[in-house]
Amino acid sequence: MKRKLRMGMIGGGPTSFIGPIHRKAAGIDGEIELVCGAFSIVPGESKQTGEALYLNPKRVYETYQEMFEAEKNLPPDQRMDFVSVVTPNHVHFGPSKMALENGFHVIVEKPISFNLEEAKALQKLVAKTGLVLGLTHTYTGYPLVKEARSMVAAGKFGKIRKVYVEYPQGWLSTLLEGTGNLQASWRTDPKQSGMGGAIGDIGTHAANLAEYITGKKITEICVMLNSVVKGRLLDDDCSMLVKFENGATGVLLATQVAAGEENNLNIRVYGEKGGLEWKQEEPNTMILKWLDRPKEIIRAGQAYLSDDAKKFTRTPAGHPEGYLEAFANIYRAFTKAVRDYKPGKKINPAKYDFPDVADGVHGMSFVQTAVKSATSTRKWTKLK
Amino acid sequence: MKRKLRMGMIGGGPTSFIGPIHRKAAGIDGEIELVCGAFSIVPGESKQTGEALYLNPKRVYETYQEMFEAEKNLPPDQRMDFVSVVTPNHVHFGPSKMALENGFHVIVEKPISFNLEEAKALQKLVAKTGLVLGLTHTYTGYPLVKEARSMVAAGKFGKIRKVYVEYPQGWLSTLLEGTGNLQASWRTDPKQSGMGGAIGDIGTHAANLAEYITGKKITEICVMLNSVVKGRLLDDDCSMLVKFENGATGVLLATQVAAGEENNLNIRVYGEKGGLEWKQEEPNTMILKWLDRPKEIIRAGQAYLSDDAKKFTRTPAGHPEGYLEAFANIYRAFTKAVRDYKPGKKINPAKYDFPDVADGVHGMSFVQTAVKSATSTRKWTKLK
Amino acid sequence: MKRKLRMGMIGGGPTSFIGPIHRKAAGIDGEIELVCGAFSIVPGESKQTGEALYLNPKRVYETYQEMFEAEKNLPPDQRMDFVSVVTPNHVHFGPSKMALENGFHVIVEKPISFNLEEAKALQKLVAKTGLVLGLTHTYTGYPLVKEARSMVAAGKFGKIRKVYVEYPQGWLSTLLEGTGNLQASWRTDPKQSGMGGAIGDIGTHAANLAEYITGKKITEICVMLNSVVKGRLLDDDCSMLVKFENGATGVLLATQVAAGEENNLNIRVYGEKGGLEWKQEEPNTMILKWLDRPKEIIRAGQAYLSDDAKKFTRTPAGHPEGYLEAFANIYRAFTKAVRDYKPGKKINPAKYDFPDVADGVHGMSFVQTAVKSATSTRKWTKLK
Amino acid sequence: MKRKLRMGMIGGGPTSFIGPIHRKAAGIDGEIELVCGAFSIVPGESKQTGEALYLNPKRVYETYQEMFEAEKNLPPDQRMDFVSVVTPNHVHFGPSKMALENGFHVIVEKPISFNLEEAKALQKLVAKTGLVLGLTHTYTGYPLVKEARSMVAAGKFGKIRKVYVEYPQGWLSTLLEGTGNLQASWRTDPKQSGMGGAIGDIGTHAANLAEYITGKKITEICVMLNSVVKGRLLDDDCSMLVKFENGATGVLLATQVAAGEENNLNIRVYGEKGGLEWKQEEPNTMILKWLDRPKEIIRAGQAYLSDDAKKFTRTPAGHPEGYLEAFANIYRAFTKAVRDYKPGKKINPAKYDFPDVADGVHGMSFVQTAVKSATSTRKWTKLK
Repeated sequence: MKRKLRMGMIGGGPTSFIGPIHRKAAGIDGEIELVCGAFSIVPGESKQTGEALYLNPKRVYETYQEMFEAEKNLPPDQRMDFVSVVTPNHVHFGPSKMALENGFHVIVEKPISFNLEEAKALQKLVAKTGLVLGLTHTYTGYPLVKEARSMVAAGKFGKIRKVYVEYPQGWLSTLLEGTGNLQASWRTDPKQSGMGGAIGDIGTHAANLAEYITGKKITEICVMLNSVVKGRLLDDDCSMLVKFENGATGVLLATQVAAGEENNLNIRVYGEKGGLEWKQEEPNTMILKWLDRPKEIIRAGQAYLSDDAKKFTRTPAGHPEGYLEAFANIYRAFTKAVRDYKPGKKINPAKYDFPDVADGVHGMSFVQTAVKSATSTRKWTKLK
Repeated sequence: MKRKLRMGMIGGGPTSFIGPIHRKAAGIDGEIELVCGAFSIVPGESKQTGEALYLNPKRVYETYQEMFEAEKNLPPDQRMDFVSVVTPNHVHFGPSKMALENGFHVIVEKPISFNLEEAKALQKLVAKTGLVLGLTHTYTGYPLVKEARSMVAAGKFGKIRKVYVEYPQGWLSTLLEGTGNLQASWRTDPKQSGMGGAIGDIGTHAANLAEYITGKKITEICVMLNSVVKGRLLDDDCSMLVKFENGATGVLLATQVAAGEENNLNIRVYGEKGGLEWKQEEPNTMILKWLDRPKEIIRAGQAYLSDDAKKFTRTPAGHPEGYLEAFANIYRAFTKAVRDYKPGKKINPAKYDFPDVADGVHGMSFVQTAVKSATSTRKWTKLK
Repeated sequence: MKRKLRMGMIGGGPTSFIGPIHRKAAGIDGEIELVCGAFSIVPGESKQTGEALYLNPKRVYETYQEMFEAEKNLPPDQRMDFVSVVTPNHVHFGPSKMALENGFHVIVEKPISFNLEEAKALQKLVAKTGLVLGLTHTYTGYPLVKEARSMVAAGKFGKIRKVYVEYPQGWLSTLLEGTGNLQASWRTDPKQSGMGGAIGDIGTHAANLAEYITGKKITEICVMLNSVVKGRLLDDDCSMLVKFENGATGVLLATQVAAGEENNLNIRVYGEKGGLEWKQEEPNTMILKWLDRPKEIIRAGQAYLSDDAKKFTRTPAGHPEGYLEAFANIYRAFTKAVRDYKPGKKINPAKYDFPDVADGVHGMSFVQTAVKSATSTRKWTKLK
Repeated sequence: MKRKLRMGMIGGGPTSFIGPIHRKAAGIDGEIELVCGAFSIVPGESKQTGEALYLNPKRVYETYQEMFEAEKNLPPDQRMDFVSVVTPNHVHFGPSKMALENGFHVIVEKPISFNLEEAKALQKLVAKTGLVLGLTHTYTGYPLVKEARSMVAAGKFGKIRKVYVEYPQGWLSTLLEGTGNLQASWRTDPKQSGMGGAIGDIGTHAANLAEYITGKKITEICVMLNSVVKGRLLDDDCSMLVKFENGATGVLLATQVAAGEENNLNIRVYGEKGGLEWKQEEPNTMILKWLDRPKEIIRAGQAYLSDDAKKFTRTPAGHPEGYLEAFANIYRAFTKAVRDYKPGKKINPAKYDFPDVADGVHGMSFVQTAVKSATSTRKWTKLK
């Protein structure tokens, strides 16, 4: 296909945080062209956003239903190839489902859906249609996260014993949703966000990161969820003890009331021979720790990295890449899969290295189990 | 008392790690003179150590019983003032008890005793005799730990909400006790170390640090203890969810199998308005985090610190102090109390700022409760 | 102008390092569309690159002369708006001159030209045509560099006294140009690179950064240039004492033989009341130092930053931006100026905040003076 | 000699900064006993200090002349073994000379003397008497500085090419000497401090550190000295280009007007294969940089260090040592030499690894040459 892929967007209007991020990320590699969108259900906002993005006004829609209807009837040389869903959580399922049903690939912001049932429904649809569904668990897009996974898989640290993963933020330290802040409002509203607050918004990222790097699933958890700020409707703070399928254990914490923290996702993994430490806020550096020799500083862009990391790198060492590039890496992998797609052929997301519908289902199960464990007096609850 | 205080030492022979540390720490401020010791029960070793320390051979003893007997009969202008107990855990109680019973003040390496009963017995003896008992929970000796406590107490961060305290080490990642390593051998031996491995050896330091800084006691814990290395007789790894008496919650972890870690005790505390972060391996720096303004870097030795920190500082900013100076600060505070001691007068350790017998009792209770929680299927266990 | 700006590119073929960087940077904000290019003079390579970029084959040219000829004859609704020049140094002048002569705006990779004379010729052309010329001194594109400049200008540090700016790299520690490495070959070749090696390639970045942040020009320098690696034709190492127009003094160093360094551009500036420290490899953090109070950690994306920084930021704090975004910021400012351009109107680059032809002339003068000083036995040489 | 060495002190009264540092450092290892002193020439202050240090009042003297007279007449089993000279610079020579003339070893605070002539006179006296003279260039006492020297000597980095050494402080950013600050007053007074301000006070430390680690002497310098703060009588700021005897080049800077800096002595050394970076304020960590592989983090106390470092270490890795321990290491080495001293035997300071009279002479020559270069219009001035 000697052309850019054509992307439509659902959500991402004037008040969206993540919509512009998706668009910028999709723009970096020159592989994707935004051709249409249904950016907002607030009257006029979709049009306004379409104009700001220099889109053809005819392809700026008021609703996603209208968009699918119109786009599927466009000739193949104009029609969008895939849709990017960047709405609040409770509007992930509808557009994703409709996209798959109408023959469009989907890349959807996490969490994949509002609840586990929706996620499973999407999984069935993907299986049935063979279309590509990508999930933007952004943080696995960083090259050094891929290096970490690669090193663990190669046994560099021996058998993994301990995993400590944290996602501390501080932005919800006050009742921000009471001030009209839109991001805070929908994320702390059970009707828009789902049954999990911090656990769903960022805890899933932490779990996904830990499982991605170790290559092992979490099997049992012992959870404490708190609503620290008075008046908050969902949890804003989570700590849990965790067990992994290989016998490793650890701690996962995610909080939005660690006042003064920004977006400090970080992970430490220890095996028999050594360990690693990575922090999202300084993503181009990873520390390796060894039993009998000096620690090492691994740096993105270096010649000594594995191909797993290198193929998701755009600049040489010392020229820092960031969040947008990590995001672009999810798009890069997703895009390759879309280009390789043929009706009837089964796409293997692991080959391309992007989070997919299975990660989405697992994430929703994780949130549901965490909420269940939090209210239990029993220490351990199993993930199914 | 216009003279140096006279110290006797029990333990600290040729194979001791902590004995020389105590002696060096005690030597820094020029307030203490080592005059006698019973350094080892291995025949000849006490004499050997005494010679290396240039002691009067007459005051180098084979057993601590012999030492107390001899010293108490010396004239007051020669007799030791206090004894420093630096033996393995199971030999903390005997010498401490005998010291108190014979009128000597005691500074004892942590944990205060082998089990909770012994700790309580010492507490009664201290109450009865009025003598000074110090416990070397070294890490609260660092000036910036004192600054942290001072800032929390002054309400700089608002009400404390979250506490994350960690003590990762890696030195027991292999079955070191099987190689003849003496430190590993006694620390992993239930008969010498007590019922707790990592939880007792370093978990108590973590708990003590958290409680010291926040000024709040841990009230409930949910504990996972592991013996990660095959063949190990005690736990070498601990993670727990914790609740504090003010409603704060958090996580405490202590592990000796985090391969590549040295002695990475660290703590993060968050309140309504901000938080702090401190790491023992770089003890002269503390990061403050704030809701609405830049993070700050607090540095030991600076003029802007509180008196609580300044009075335990020896060098100006930029001239790093370390572990020995932190240790010396415990001795400094203990020594002041000893100088102020008068028969019949009650010494208040909080005024001098050193860990005392109450901390010892609480620490033993913490270990005992942690072991109990670890084997329970109930999520939460209360500390008494 | 309710459309994307149309960009043509000169250089940036299959072996180019900086060409893809420019394209990715230009793609981030969705304001620019690459429509044509003369990517290489190696037969076939331009076509190959054009295909890889999904360009219309008719607008992929073999030479830049051909490109200007063809593009200027296209109708205004197709014709490119500006050209991006990303060739080796000795081919900066030709395309830039021809662009201006044919009515196209120019954004050109630094250094602006091969020598000072060419730079001055371009300056005259810009003055004559009124067209916009941008120069990609990338590193001033970082938001925190803009914050630094803003703070200095606001007098936060008092009068500036000391400036230490460094640009250490290690990649030329061996005679890489002897191994066929293309980047090393042209950069160490006086015929392609100009009279300066390290001083021209990276020393100019350091000087530009120092002058940008302080708002003061370097007036006198005392230079040591070395060709450390045997067989190298240009300097690969530079150190100089510098004086600034306000009386501040300092040190500038740039080296390509600091083995193990990546791209460690960094700067420290001190005034009467405090100072700042910024490192390109961790560009989202800046340390402020103060006479009487704790150091502060300024972070990109924070609400407390000035508008000067905020308008060049795409993500909230904790979502790191990097080199591509800094690069995109030069494009962002340049693009705004191009959109505002009207024949006869004078564009003020300072208003938009992008490096322009005056910076280019000053940079070439800096290199020429440095080379002169390096061979002089006199301590100080003035910049004119 | 089965006893502690007996130390006398000259200087170190109530207002002294460095006196208490020396005493604490000398106390750490239990090898030294302070027995006498002439602590101040201010009437009563010597007595006051002697009491605070629990000294025998008979051995607390009013003047150093009196002290030497009295001590040399004491019986050998009481007489001090060596004297520690911790007075301001202009009173280093007198006591040191008198000590050597009366048969006492000397450890003297740097700089060794007020000017080069005095230094040379002491050198002759040391040669004549064979007594041990140590110079407290403290910073070479850090274990990782010794490791750095050892690695360079072993050729780990190949031939050394670049040396960047810096000593930025900020404490003299204002005219502190005008406020009655005693430390500032004598250090900025040419009559007490000598011909160099910052260059003498801290520039010599930087030069000494660079020469110690590289094992190469500075041969030529090109110096800029500034008195940045109005009204200051000596330089408070220094930058210089330097050449070393092996062909390496670099930059040395020392400043006391880098507002907000504490005591940030640091060094970077690069050879053909890699380099090292060390910062005094975090002295237990050293970064190694390599051409083709990850950077490494070397940590004090680790088993993988050389014996050169290990023999100056008191605690295992992760238990930070600091400035006092570095200081104590100078005393440790000096003390060993004193114990080995026999009349007629020549002591080789390099064997013990402490700075000696030759370092003192070289340091004074460095200061004198720097001042000369600073006023010259010639670029380079040779050190003799």
